[in-house]
Amino acid sequence: MDILHYQKEFLQYLESKEWVQEPKNLYEPIDYILKLGGKRIRPILTLMAADIFGADSKKALPAALAVEVFHNFTLVHDDIMDDAPIRRGKPTVHEKWDISTGILSGDAMLILAYKYFENYEPIVFQKLAKLFSKTALEVCDGQQLDVDFETRNDVTIDAYINMIRLKTSVLVAAALKMGAIVAETDDENADLIYDFGLNLGLAFQLQDDYLDTFGNAETFGKQIGGDIMENKKTYLYLKCLEVASEEHQQKLAFYYRQKLKDNSFKVPEVTRIFKMNDIPYLVTQEIENYTQKAFDTLSKMSISSDSKENLKAFGLWLMKRDV
Amino acid sequence: MDILHYQKEFLQYLESKEWVQEPKNLYEPIDYILKLGGKRIRPILTLMAADIFGADSKKALPAALAVEVFHNFTLVHDDIMDDAPIRRGKPTVHEKWDISTGILSGDAMLILAYKYFENYEPIVFQKLAKLFSKTALEVCDGQQLDVDFETRNDVTIDAYINMIRLKTSVLVAAALKMGAIVAETDDENADLIYDFGLNLGLAFQLQDDYLDTFGNAETFGKQIGGDIMENKKTYLYLKCLEVASEEHQQKLAFYYRQKLKDNSFKVPEVTRIFKMNDIPYLVTQEIENYTQKAFDTLSKMSISSDSKENLKAFGLWLMKRDV
Repeated sequence: MDILHYQKEFLQYLESKEWVQEPKNLYEPIDYILKLGGKRIRPILTLMAADIFGADSKKALPAALAVEVFHNFTLVHDDIMDDAPIRRGKPTVHEKWDISTGILSGDAMLILAYKYFENYEPIVFQKLAKLFSKTALEVCDGQQLDVDFETRNDVTIDAYINMIRLKTSVLVAAALKMGAIVAETDDENADLIYDFGLNLGLAFQLQDDYLDTFGNAETFGKQIGGDIMENKKTYLYLKCLEVASEEHQQKLAFYYRQKLKDNSFKVPEVTRIFKMNDIPYLVTQEIENYTQKAFDTLSKMSISSDSKENLKAFGLWLMKRDV
Repeated sequence: MDILHYQKEFLQYLESKEWVQEPKNLYEPIDYILKLGGKRIRPILTLMAADIFGADSKKALPAALAVEVFHNFTLVHDDIMDDAPIRRGKPTVHEKWDISTGILSGDAMLILAYKYFENYEPIVFQKLAKLFSKTALEVCDGQQLDVDFETRNDVTIDAYINMIRLKTSVLVAAALKMGAIVAETDDENADLIYDFGLNLGLAFQLQDDYLDTFGNAETFGKQIGGDIMENKKTYLYLKCLEVASEEHQQKLAFYYRQKLKDNSFKVPEVTRIFKMNDIPYLVTQEIENYTQKAFDTLSKMSISSDSKENLKAFGLWLMKRDV
């Protein structure tokens, strides 16, 4: 199983879609954001799962597209909420057009995602649409919790894990389960691949937190220290508050009350406090825990050991980002 | 058939729904907008159609709710785009909370609408969801055209009718057809009730244009002359441009280039030009044309003549707003 094969298959399908129709001002932004790039992890997962459970991956292309269009819809609306000017090195939709365009084109994308399920017969259609609605609503819940956490000082690690589960992991899990649904495997397999994705998604998001502070600027693609500058209450920050001495806790709290223009002192200072409290090790352990949980799920699945190895290989590929 | 009976049945169902759950900041705005009131025309249509085609109207309640939640979603997002502070005499969602809340709660409402269809078995579910997606996308198209028309000077009457068809009428038509789908009537009846709704919806929107200028401030519920103040290219304006002398055309164009704080001269002047060009009569004729078209569709429908009379009564009730 070659991950790049699925990626290529999906990209060809994506390119074959003619998004732009009248009214152009509604559909050009959709074409723009969908062709901005990205690793296409979620649609790859849908194709891979369909393949593993015995279907032709081509059959899963419309479902894979639904997942990718939905993911891009969340980017368009989140970028408005975060006032973000840049996405993948290019202007965000609301920056290139305007906020109204971002809202309306995003809405249209959410509807388009549902439309791609119309390629399936009624029972598969209903299963896909139900899973999709549940997942999409959870992603909204997660986004709202993320916003709420900005102004809350009582965020626990459990609450944080729940937030990233909703905001990020359920979509990874659902992407896989949709492949399973298209392949019409049994419910047990479909639920197990969902759990695999959920834990892998959590590991992936925690690694994102880790790389934001301890990653390599060349390969990470985002500015190192961005979360610290923004005072984001990530796993690193919350874990450090839990394990640090009162002195370090107070220092950390002090830095997280500042929003600075010049972060040349704050970022290395907070990073130093993290390191003194062994946070790189502690978060790495947690990433490994969730990755291991994901791999444990595989043993219960009734698929060939080759397929299990392939899913494991995908997990390792996903997690092997340059640190 | 008692229209108020359906309204009451729907309102009881709406009240029985507990919207607010965690995260509260996401669901409280949904509860707020849905309980702000309104005539509930669209869900009434769904219940009525189900009844007419032989189903218990109660069976159509989830579909009726989907239509109403979708309609309110469009209000929340449109109010952001229009920068509108007031809706039904109360602060709009983005005014009471903020723009991010308006965007995200709106998104959740669009997803919730789809979820209500899960109450139906797969074949009915797919029919409802397909009609809903098609309609929702058309409403987005209509909203985009409405925005585009603000800065265009080449809008024809046909283009305007097409815009209001998409922005308003297709949802009225779909609300009726959903009742037909729930009642599992034949496709011909379902398509005919759709056409009935489409033409009635056009008549309704043209009447809205008419009342905005020539209505009674006491009963219309909106400020008289609002469209003129906003330089909205409504049917009145476009028809007047078509039939007026060059002198009147130029005067009208002159007024529609002004955005004024004090409209105490502009509104009566434009109204006077409309009257001199017989626009009240011409638009009333067009409203009657579309109403008649709607009523003509009824004759082709295989339902009892009582049901036809009831649909006609509803049409007359809807159009009998105080002028």
